[in-house]
Amino acid sequence: MAADPIRLGVAGLGRAFMLMLPTLARDPRLAVLACADPRAEARAHFTEDFPGARAHGTVEALCADPAVEAIYIATPHELHVAHVRAAAAAGKHVLVEKPMALALADCQAMVDAAGEAGIHLIVGHSHSFDAPYLRARDMIRGGEHGAVRMITAVNFTDYLYRPRRPEELDTSQGGGAIFSQAPHQIEVVRLLAGRPARSIRATASVWDRARGTEGAYNALIDFGDGLSATLTYNGHGHFDTDEFQDWTGEMGTPRDAAAYGTARAALRHVTTPEEEAALKERRAYGRGPGAMEARAAPPPPAYNHFGLVLASCEHADLRPTPRGVMVYADDERRFDPLPAPIIPRAEVIDELQAALRDGTPPLHSGEWGMATTEICLALLESARSGREIQLHHQGAA
Amino acid sequence: MAADPIRLGVAGLGRAFMLMLPTLARDPRLAVLACADPRAEARAHFTEDFPGARAHGTVEALCADPAVEAIYIATPHELHVAHVRAAAAAGKHVLVEKPMALALADCQAMVDAAGEAGIHLIVGHSHSFDAPYLRARDMIRGGEHGAVRMITAVNFTDYLYRPRRPEELDTSQGGGAIFSQAPHQIEVVRLLAGRPARSIRATASVWDRARGTEGAYNALIDFGDGLSATLTYNGHGHFDTDEFQDWTGEMGTPRDAAAYGTARAALRHVTTPEEEAALKERRAYGRGPGAMEARAAPPPPAYNHFGLVLASCEHADLRPTPRGVMVYADDERRFDPLPAPIIPRAEVIDELQAALRDGTPPLHSGEWGMATTEICLALLESARSGREIQLHHQGAA
Ligand SMILES: NC(=O)c1ccc[n+]([C@@H]2O[C@H](COP(=O)([O-])OP(=O)(O)OC[C@H]3O[C@@H](n4cnc5c(N)ncnc54)[C@H](O)[C@@H]3O)[C@@H](O)[C@H]2O)c1
Ligand SMILES: NC(=O)c1ccc[n+]([C@@H]2O[C@H](COP(=O)([O-])OP(=O)(O)OC[C@H]3O[C@@H](n4cnc5c(N)ncnc54)[C@H](O)[C@@H]3O)[C@@H](O)[C@H]2O)c1
Repeated sequence: MAADPIRLGVAGLGRAFMLMLPTLARDPRLAVLACADPRAEARAHFTEDFPGARAHGTVEALCADPAVEAIYIATPHELHVAHVRAAAAAGKHVLVEKPMALALADCQAMVDAAGEAGIHLIVGHSHSFDAPYLRARDMIRGGEHGAVRMITAVNFTDYLYRPRRPEELDTSQGGGAIFSQAPHQIEVVRLLAGRPARSIRATASVWDRARGTEGAYNALIDFGDGLSATLTYNGHGHFDTDEFQDWTGEMGTPRDAAAYGTARAALRHVTTPEEEAALKERRAYGRGPGAMEARAAPPPPAYNHFGLVLASCEHADLRPTPRGVMVYADDERRFDPLPAPIIPRAEVIDELQAALRDGTPPLHSGEWGMATTEICLALLESARSGREIQLHHQGAA
Repeated sequence: MAADPIRLGVAGLGRAFMLMLPTLARDPRLAVLACADPRAEARAHFTEDFPGARAHGTVEALCADPAVEAIYIATPHELHVAHVRAAAAAGKHVLVEKPMALALADCQAMVDAAGEAGIHLIVGHSHSFDAPYLRARDMIRGGEHGAVRMITAVNFTDYLYRPRRPEELDTSQGGGAIFSQAPHQIEVVRLLAGRPARSIRATASVWDRARGTEGAYNALIDFGDGLSATLTYNGHGHFDTDEFQDWTGEMGTPRDAAAYGTARAALRHVTTPEEEAALKERRAYGRGPGAMEARAAPPPPAYNHFGLVLASCEHADLRPTPRGVMVYADDERRFDPLPAPIIPRAEVIDELQAALRDGTPPLHSGEWGMATTEICLALLESARSGREIQLHHQGAA
């Protein structure tokens, strides 16, 4: 462990936590000291995984834990605002999962609470933390390829058929692709655009009544001054854009190109929402592999990604891949490799560490998360009204 | 030659004609009997290529040629309206290249002229004639995969760096990607949508001042009732979507995956518009290979295509490829192969023949072409105004 590691508590030991576990278990810049979750099974597993850590039944108790300086909030969306407020009130720094919240007023309340408490508020993980996108952003900023003019983001996944809790299938409760998946794509696009979005025109509707929420959307975001982006997302488990990533999955690990339709097939045996929630919980933290397995795993073969992304500059198209950035420039096509990752999603800890130890203002700040939430809400509003929506909380131009 | 072949004349022996030449030279359902072009060199080559054919200096003379029953009009955009009127007045059926015209009034005049004369008016070739898109359309119509909900069309090419006449680089004269390339993508999308588009929001701007016209655009087309499409086109010669088509090019022929940036490199030696026009003309019909070479060529290995296209239905994503349609259905992923093409672009002649010999109303009618032109014009207007444009000439719902 590093000198002066970040003393972290975790609120919510669910799917998001499972996905961050390889990071939390392995990054020497962290000391994972406590958790909160109502599920006793998860708490028991946690204290095994992180010997000496304290397991609390409520986020409030976790916030009161003096050993902890920062809390990773990975509870369901609708609880984020209450949990961020509680953490801020206790003077703890916060890393809160995306989407930050389901309403702009809640985002504002979180920003205000962090400001008043003088704590750092970081929103993530989102895929705009992934190193290849950050590298492409740096290339664009460097200016060598001219201004960025068009961003193309296309992601086809099986999102809608992964097992869910009932509220995850109800848009009014924060369910569906727009709250769960769009934040990733929007943030990757915003990162590469490097300036405030002005408006969005989007479409989204429920295709599969049995799922009851949007599994797909189309959006055109105008950044003004000759820069725009198309965002296409389809989570209905048919075509998969990983086909364009050499079958490297979202988490940077190899996928079996021969496997097809596994998510839908697994769900076929489920007949009630309770059965589905139980299926989700069967895979939840506490029943299967944990930090021990994560620590024993080899380093990830590649970075996380969120589908096909192309940033078109005047003199080059940049295509982030799970291993680096393909540069299609005026005179040459070359691959700019990144050093292989050592710890998955270490980029999140980079930003946390820089904020907490060096005072570097995070990119994925509360304002950043609020801007993304505004776009998610505008996406839904545009889809409902059939109108373009102007954006007003995207930060300074 | 078939019994009762279509007695065809060709107006304009330029690049478009070169691209149709393999079809015209090989399809036994055609008798190519005459042409018109001001270039003597092209006329001389034509009478060699089609022994016994008559070469006229003007379209008017071609229209007066009693041997001809139908005219393929492949003159520059701005001449289409005058040439279609002349052909219709002479009672000749018409196949006119895309874009039909540069103004809706001109399209209407062409439709009216055809109606009054009682001739068939077909607009094409466009890539919506390509067999794989027609097959995907038939699958969608069949209903087996549920309603089509989202169409994703992404095409990255080197369009902007192919040698041009000066007016092809001036949007106000019909130059640029929106008049030259968007019709293909719009028609593929319209074909798969199978119903009238309602509105378009788009962006497009000039990235390369030296070229002076739009080489790229982004568009979101709303078809209403839960169907929309994103259209992304970038012709700046960087990334190339043929990478996603096993390096099969637009014409269905293999490309060299190792070659890169050849269009831009070839243009680098050109310093004036005159030199560029000369470079274009050097490749024009009359100087290089012609019908003899086309007849001797092996059958095309694959169909024409226009980039990555995905039609997302409720129960399957359909991905037309140059060889068939990939079907990503609920339970299986399978490739639906088409019989290998025998004659390139024979689909155009299928439609011409069906109209002229069987009286089948063509899909790519004057009204069809007018609807496409409306979308091209609306795309430019949306890009200029930053507003969504409602569409009014898309036919019956
Ligand atoms: N960044 C990513 O890749 C990613 C992936 C998945 C989920 N997420 C986000 O993480 C959040 C959680 O989603 P999830 O899929 O992990 O949900 P989940 O249902 O799998 O997990 C939620 C966890 O929170 C616990 N919990 C519920 N109420 C609590 C409370 N009051 N106090 C403490 N713990 C409580 C539950 O017991 C459960 O363990 C969501 O906002 C989601 O968008 C992000
Ligand atoms: N469908 C396709 O794949 C495709 C491809 C290229 C071009 N096109 C379309 O074809 C049309 C022509 O474009 P192009 O690239 O072939 O242009 P081009 O400049 O290569 O050819 C135009 C030809 O028309 C001749 N011409 C000029 N004025 C004439 C007149 N008054 N009468 C008769 N002939 C005349 C020229 O001498 C030349 O041979 C355009 O509308 C273009 O959009 C379609």
